[in-house]
Amino acid sequence: MSARPSEGPLGVFDSGIGGLTVVQAIAELLPGERVVYLGDTARVPYGNKSPETVTRFARQDAAFLLGRGVKAVVVACNTATAFALPVLAAEMTVPVIGVLEPGVEAALARTRNGRIGLIGTAGTIGSEAYQRAIASRRPDAHLVARPTPLLVPLVEEGWLEHQVTRQVIEEYVGPMLREGIDTLVLACTHYPLLKPLLRQVAGPDVALVDSATTCAAHLGRRLATLGLDAPQKDVGGIEIFLTDRPAQFERVARRFLTVPIHRIDVVALPE
Amino acid sequence: MSARPSEGPLGVFDSGIGGLTVVQAIAELLPGERVVYLGDTARVPYGNKSPETVTRFARQDAAFLLGRGVKAVVVACNTATAFALPVLAAEMTVPVIGVLEPGVEAALARTRNGRIGLIGTAGTIGSEAYQRAIASRRPDAHLVARPTPLLVPLVEEGWLEHQVTRQVIEEYVGPMLREGIDTLVLACTHYPLLKPLLRQVAGPDVALVDSATTCAAHLGRRLATLGLDAPQKDVGGIEIFLTDRPAQFERVARRFLTVPIHRIDVVALPE
Repeated sequence: MSARPSEGPLGVFDSGIGGLTVVQAIAELLPGERVVYLGDTARVPYGNKSPETVTRFARQDAAFLLGRGVKAVVVACNTATAFALPVLAAEMTVPVIGVLEPGVEAALARTRNGRIGLIGTAGTIGSEAYQRAIASRRPDAHLVARPTPLLVPLVEEGWLEHQVTRQVIEEYVGPMLREGIDTLVLACTHYPLLKPLLRQVAGPDVALVDSATTCAAHLGRRLATLGLDAPQKDVGGIEIFLTDRPAQFERVARRFLTVPIHRIDVVALPE
Repeated sequence: MSARPSEGPLGVFDSGIGGLTVVQAIAELLPGERVVYLGDTARVPYGNKSPETVTRFARQDAAFLLGRGVKAVVVACNTATAFALPVLAAEMTVPVIGVLEPGVEAALARTRNGRIGLIGTAGTIGSEAYQRAIASRRPDAHLVARPTPLLVPLVEEGWLEHQVTRQVIEEYVGPMLREGIDTLVLACTHYPLLKPLLRQVAGPDVALVDSATTCAAHLGRRLATLGLDAPQKDVGGIEIFLTDRPAQFERVARRFLTVPIHRIDVVALPE
């Protein structure tokens, strides 16, 4: 007797560990779902690499997850979503959900004045995928976008409350605030860890839209619509696969993910 | 009639573009040498990855250069040198020169009080390769080592004179200065671009030893000893191979390398 599709795990991949913020949000919102996570830590980051290279890597990542029998693939990386989601969606035999659409929908629902700030990697911003998605839904929106490549290294260094990080955020986000944005899209799965500092710099009146929680909420609705949500009796669980196991992985991962991890393995991806 | 070995090009590889500081130093010091450079920009950086993964990548990089007929291989990456130099030296059929030995020799020649600071990636510092090399030559040396993972992103962001970069350097290097170091080893090929700020923070009395110029000087002596130096009549030239061509590569590369580039190609490495 074959398992029902809804009983398979969710596959989630990212260039590294940032996507664990999405796993955390899934675990909180959809606690019955089992998750198989792949972090391409041998080739991290994707954010400063070309569309061709990121698409090649994303295909390999998704193929690995399909091989684990997942019922859907979540692209928990803004750069991979921006460059590769259409290709993956066209090629894969299971639903593919990225972080872009949920973020765009949430931003458009939140903004009152139509002035939206966008921060992410050089790849995500340079792809203009967010810019196109917003313009197609709301042509009069005024988008202020900026690549913010220092934020991932600052998160990975653990300087989440550091004066230097605050200054970097001021330099990146300050000009957006002066343009009157009322909503800021955090288009990178590392950035939710900087929410306290971003809140301090942006003030109480700017809505912060993060990739992780908006993606998990969207995913829950998609799975329910498709009849792929886990049966209520299920107890979730998280398996993590990495392409490299860096020193102090657990210490860094614990900043992103506080729910229990059932397994961590290092794997080689077929080219 | 086969070419004399001294007529082949030098092979130089790095995880990305930082090794171009070594190419620049070679071009200045040994202008007759032709250089074939490989930057593994698809998988950059190496500095936060495991010894096993870095060694695997370094072997693939060196094999690519051997396939281009190089007379010697320069490992222009401190992390790859720290983890993989012994393996490469044992396996390769041409001389292999890393950045560690030249830096260690220069530091020991420069220090007066035997108190030496060391900054580099998490991989380089965690490998303890520099620490061992210094201790074996001068057991009474007092080494203060610190991983400084934010410096590469700051260089790549172009914030070479930025107030934030100065603060980060003060946080990283300040404690070393308070321990009385008189020599600071810049154990990463990106760091020569930060010499003006490092000089401001460290003051005039601390010797700054950089990987690029010390490696080029050492290389010149090694080639002469082995009879592999280019004939005087030769005119050098630089060919660059990359595993990914990121946006704005030339703009960023020009911070590292001001001599002419004869060719830039993107290549796939055999696994």
